Amino acid sequence: MLLPHTLSLEENVLTARRTTALVITAALTLPLTTAAHPADHLDAGLPLEARVHALLGRMTLDEKIGQMTQIRVGKLRGDCDAVPGPLREDCMKPVLVDAKVGSILSGGGDFPAPDPSPKAWAEMTNAIQKYALDNNRLRIPVLYGADGVHGHSNVVTATMFPHQIGLGATWNPKLIEQAGAATGQAMRATGVFWNFAPVSDIARDTRWGRYYETYSEDPHLAGTLAAAAVRGMQTDDGRTARLAATAKHFAGYSEPKGGHDRAPAFLPVRTLQDQVLPPFTAQFRAGVKTVMINSGSVNGVPVHASKYMLTEQLRNRLGFTGVAITDWQDIRSLVTKHKAAADYPAAIAMAVNAGVDMAMEPSAAGEFTAGLRQVVRDGRVSERRVDEAVRRILRLKFELGLFERPYVDPAVANERVNGVGLDLARKAATESMVLLRNEKSTLPLAKGGKIVVTGDTADDVRRQLGGWTVDWQGVPEQGPVPEAVTVLEGIRAAAPGGTVAHAPGQAEAVAQAKDAKAVVVVLGEKPGAEGPADTEEPALTAAQQGLVDAVRATGKPVVVVLLTGRPQVLGSVAGADALLAGWLPGTEGGTAVADVLFGTANPGGKLPVSWPKRVGDQPMSYDQLPGTNGGESSKYDPAFAFGHGLSYTSFAVGAPSVPATVRADAKLKIGFTVRNTGSRAGTAVVPVYVHQPVAPLQVPDKRLVGWARVELAAGAQQAVEVEFSVEQLALTSGDVDGAGRREVPRTGYEVVVEDERAPFAVR
Amino acid sequence: MLLPHTLSLEENVLTARRTTALVITAALTLPLTTAAHPADHLDAGLPLEARVHALLGRMTLDEKIGQMTQIRVGKLRGDCDAVPGPLREDCMKPVLVDAKVGSILSGGGDFPAPDPSPKAWAEMTNAIQKYALDNNRLRIPVLYGADGVHGHSNVVTATMFPHQIGLGATWNPKLIEQAGAATGQAMRATGVFWNFAPVSDIARDTRWGRYYETYSEDPHLAGTLAAAAVRGMQTDDGRTARLAATAKHFAGYSEPKGGHDRAPAFLPVRTLQDQVLPPFTAQFRAGVKTVMINSGSVNGVPVHASKYMLTEQLRNRLGFTGVAITDWQDIRSLVTKHKAAADYPAAIAMAVNAGVDMAMEPSAAGEFTAGLRQVVRDGRVSERRVDEAVRRILRLKFELGLFERPYVDPAVANERVNGVGLDLARKAATESMVLLRNEKSTLPLAKGGKIVVTGDTADDVRRQLGGWTVDWQGVPEQGPVPEAVTVLEGIRAAAPGGTVAHAPGQAEAVAQAKDAKAVVVVLGEKPGAEGPADTEEPALTAAQQGLVDAVRATGKPVVVVLLTGRPQVLGSVAGADALLAGWLPGTEGGTAVADVLFGTANPGGKLPVSWPKRVGDQPMSYDQLPGTNGGESSKYDPAFAFGHGLSYTSFAVGAPSVPATVRADAKLKIGFTVRNTGSRAGTAVVPVYVHQPVAPLQVPDKRLVGWARVELAAGAQQAVEVEFSVEQLALTSGDVDGAGRREVPRTGYEVVVEDERAPFAVR
Repeated sequence: MLLPHTLSLEENVLTARRTTALVITAALTLPLTTAAHPADHLDAGLPLEARVHALLGRMTLDEKIGQMTQIRVGKLRGDCDAVPGPLREDCMKPVLVDAKVGSILSGGGDFPAPDPSPKAWAEMTNAIQKYALDNNRLRIPVLYGADGVHGHSNVVTATMFPHQIGLGATWNPKLIEQAGAATGQAMRATGVFWNFAPVSDIARDTRWGRYYETYSEDPHLAGTLAAAAVRGMQTDDGRTARLAATAKHFAGYSEPKGGHDRAPAFLPVRTLQDQVLPPFTAQFRAGVKTVMINSGSVNGVPVHASKYMLTEQLRNRLGFTGVAITDWQDIRSLVTKHKAAADYPAAIAMAVNAGVDMAMEPSAAGEFTAGLRQVVRDGRVSERRVDEAVRRILRLKFELGLFERPYVDPAVANERVNGVGLDLARKAATESMVLLRNEKSTLPLAKGGKIVVTGDTADDVRRQLGGWTVDWQGVPEQGPVPEAVTVLEGIRAAAPGGTVAHAPGQAEAVAQAKDAKAVVVVLGEKPGAEGPADTEEPALTAAQQGLVDAVRATGKPVVVVLLTGRPQVLGSVAGADALLAGWLPGTEGGTAVADVLFGTANPGGKLPVSWPKRVGDQPMSYDQLPGTNGGESSKYDPAFAFGHGLSYTSFAVGAPSVPATVRADAKLKIGFTVRNTGSRAGTAVVPVYVHQPVAPLQVPDKRLVGWARVELAAGAQQAVEVEFSVEQLALTSGDVDGAGRREVPRTGYEVVVEDERAPFAVR
Repeated sequence: MLLPHTLSLEENVLTARRTTALVITAALTLPLTTAAHPADHLDAGLPLEARVHALLGRMTLDEKIGQMTQIRVGKLRGDCDAVPGPLREDCMKPVLVDAKVGSILSGGGDFPAPDPSPKAWAEMTNAIQKYALDNNRLRIPVLYGADGVHGHSNVVTATMFPHQIGLGATWNPKLIEQAGAATGQAMRATGVFWNFAPVSDIARDTRWGRYYETYSEDPHLAGTLAAAAVRGMQTDDGRTARLAATAKHFAGYSEPKGGHDRAPAFLPVRTLQDQVLPPFTAQFRAGVKTVMINSGSVNGVPVHASKYMLTEQLRNRLGFTGVAITDWQDIRSLVTKHKAAADYPAAIAMAVNAGVDMAMEPSAAGEFTAGLRQVVRDGRVSERRVDEAVRRILRLKFELGLFERPYVDPAVANERVNGVGLDLARKAATESMVLLRNEKSTLPLAKGGKIVVTGDTADDVRRQLGGWTVDWQGVPEQGPVPEAVTVLEGIRAAAPGGTVAHAPGQAEAVAQAKDAKAVVVVLGEKPGAEGPADTEEPALTAAQQGLVDAVRATGKPVVVVLLTGRPQVLGSVAGADALLAGWLPGTEGGTAVADVLFGTANPGGKLPVSWPKRVGDQPMSYDQLPGTNGGESSKYDPAFAFGHGLSYTSFAVGAPSVPATVRADAKLKIGFTVRNTGSRAGTAVVPVYVHQPVAPLQVPDKRLVGWARVELAAGAQQAVEVEFSVEQLALTSGDVDGAGRREVPRTGYEVVVEDERAPFAVR
């Protein structure tokens, strides 16, 4: 979501008028369940659809519109706008009573102030809920949402997991499910029952500011991992109401022209259906309850105004039945940014008719209510369409159990959040480490001796945690900083026998290197998100390259640890003795890096994206179609390929076994052996690709259909079986216009496992 | 076209076997017309369609297939393959008699050897024609084609005009029509009646190796200029048969992913119809007789195999009735590069069924004949489809008058080519100059005093002329170099009163600058074309920037002349006192540059493309759709904008007058005044844009619909009228899938002329 940078003077003046009213204290005594009201929809014994039907039937148009509205918590407190503070009745009334708003969000940085503890979060959400229920004739609970992008990341004391790009490098759905579960539990403990995560967009352009929020450039890997996250987040721990995850951003968000966030995307129907939508499909199958809509336009149509995207594809073709919510202020954006509608009511009609169910922060709640009421009354939007949207929203609230358990227990919030999941965060960070290069076995470093630690991200929590931490642009310069183990701290803790010298600058690093055993340079990037994090130069800076050049000139072994959210073009740094991609590794990042550097852990991460060689290599992904210019200039030529990742041991993969023919609607089991041929335990990740030798409809040289991930002791061997659905090979048939159905070409294929191949045919 | 770099050993062995046969001498006495044969199709008095019908009815399948084949001249001479030499009967027989091939081409570098004169060209094409007619029972003449990309550029002594990107900067269709006419006359004088030009692709990515072969990034500018070129080339001078121009590359060639030549393109139907195809439509209206097909794939379908592109769009929607020819070996590429077909016959069936009429250099003529014969016999291709293709080819040959005038007169060839069009070439080069920057009126330079001329392209004919000059990769290092005036020579000739010091290197330039009045640095790029000219770093090199930095450090005024085929990212060179974009200016380039530097000419060129600021700015064009991230990171932010170009004088443009409402099928006349407000004569180019304030289907902030180009004396004023068809505003309606019709949105618009606007509505 895009948050405003500035507060307009006019808004300040308006909200200042309200500052005389009473302040609500956060300390309230609340029942953890609501008493059943003598109305059908509050009877938990009834079938869900009956409750929805009963409730909808009793609602006025304005009550329905209120349910379709989500307002940021800032409007309920402080100055009723941008300045935080305690909840205030005079702020809440216009939103929750007058506009009857059914959902509240923290958009990033919207934590309780001055106390940002989990307990204060729980008290805040409870107070909002109580006010809403007490002032709502039908006792419809409020649904509170937030961006729990890598842990309950708005909460300063919560455990931060690696960002999605790092989790993508683990190729470990189980781990990601666990991290999702931990995130969901922390959110629910604070009364947040809707997480605007995970991102299911695919990473195609390193210039893009949200690259690190994706799992992978590959649709299958991204979809599989996103589905795992959804399963984890939506796990019911039985202690509170449930939580809804969000598949976002539906759809085509991650292929903006020129790599600019929210810039227009141009996607042939075939690209849309065969590449962009499959990760969403995977999450729909995992039961994700909501989708957030792409703020950008696709093929000249703003997605918030596209019935093709929001109804024809999302509902009719993909069968999604949950709630579709706008991104931040995106109905208004149809007027102000897209210039697609002449005024706000026209934009509302456009969006709701296209298939928007809920409007996130539509500027002022009352304005949205008035606008939607107007277009329903003048016939531009049917009440039937409003009912459809509200039905989905009510169904979601019933499914989550919010009617029965609208509140949480503030007394247990701190213990359910603070320090919870640290072991898992360390495991995730460790598994996310990709050893890109390791000349002359520079790594692992022996313990003992002097190690120089330098670089701009060696000891910087803000940079290590990245964007969407406390605030959407990362931890603010002012205010509380989350606790996290930096790489410097991790190395210090892991090397008790040796000397660790921290040299913040270049001259000092060179001087310190003289009697050192090795130099560890930790390089990162400024935290940020969305448009502000876009760059036309997705490369290490001249200063960063200069530092590495200088310490390399000392002749000492140089290990470069890259804590960046995107694969930065390396320039001269590509020649360092060892290169470790640590992404944005979260709270336990420094420990994980140290574990890998000293060999306590054996790196098993694999690149979920291609690492470009040159700034001019964008967009880039391994799955490009064959070119025809002789290949030289269009061949896939990354610095490090998709799937690359070294280990301290080595593995051998046997030839795959596969049935000779399979049906298009079947599943296929690929068997092969993996052997640890080295001298220490390690994790092998073996991608399984399918190659189609002849393809009238062009396909990449290989398409990822699955993978094996095996932990093996030294010398151990294991037979593995990778199963995939043949339907994963489906392509949108037809000609250039992509007007056909998705179907699996009946032809010959080859399973490709490393250098081994086995043919099969689909009949 | 892509030519092979290497000759395989096997091919050498095979062709070596033929080297014992007789050599045909080029000196033949030939009638300039053929006597009418007692058959209908040779009767010039009959209607054209009757002749086509009569001839087609007499042809065997093999004769038809021969007409669908085009073979390079190398196979008729020398070693019957790659090594040039005189025509040989034993080389010609397999092609012209056995395979009955109906068309021959010079693909670049295929000039007569050892004598590359126009006379030798005429003798060579005559001899081929005579052999073909004499050995052809139906006396169907051969049609000879070549790439006359900027003049008859295969001919060493021909006049080279600026490359298309430079002509684009003139915004002068009349000039381009004249250059086209001159090119066509030179080609016809040598017996070449088919020009594979102009390029109608639009320039969208400076990394692309063929960027300089386009006119513009704007579809309307590119289409208007391409249509003018077609009219010029196809002009009948009455002295020989006529010439056919080619619209290429149909379609989507110039938007390859990542800027790599012939890499796959991904184009929504809307982009294809509203942006890519309009320049072709403009040429179809101008009567262009042939199209060459895009070698790449669009949306996963190789265009050579796309019935949607070659029949549904090209024929059914756009109404093109001429000949569609493949690019170089592109049917075979369906097997070898695209992997779209399992074998050659399957590829032939695919291509011919899609809509290919003629195969350019399908490896060996006999193999294509056998393949097409096989797929016709087994029913994969209907003889009706073959007849359709052959009918188009025969119609073309009749239309050109080849049956009546198959030969040319070698005696006049030299005088019709050598030195012809030099004045026009100078005018074109002068008008193509875009003055990008001129701080403190550095330009024009006063005559007298010492001028230092330096830079890698100050005195280098090869770099000045660029690719597609003699050879496709530019003038070969070995062999004859065309005569051309370099910038050094031009300055020397223009500054007789002063001293001109040529300093090839940096240190010398700095030393020479000490007592100089100004330094002129001429920077270029290595000549090249297609894939080999692709780059991931479309920027001035570090060495080029270093040279400019060094001479600027002397404090002397520094003028940088950029002789490059693409707008290179400037880096520190952006700060030079004056910057002149001279593109690839051709034979008279140095004179034109000198004319502008000394003020003999007042520069009037305007950028036909956007000049990017950073390497990571690709793809880039001014007509981007509105973004939604607040604009900062996605806004149009070039170093110099589309349409930019300074003058030594200044102009004022008055408010436009426009009717308040127009019909969608009408033409609209925009009137305004242009006044020369400066103190010297000059040319004003005033683009006329249309802005659409509210657009549910996103449109660029402004769309070019026309322009005025006026030469005005100092102080003079002129009322101009720019006419455009409202249908130019048409968009493909419908949603993201672009499934609708092209129609003009009935809504409000504004005409935008510089800062002046006038509203109108389409009803």
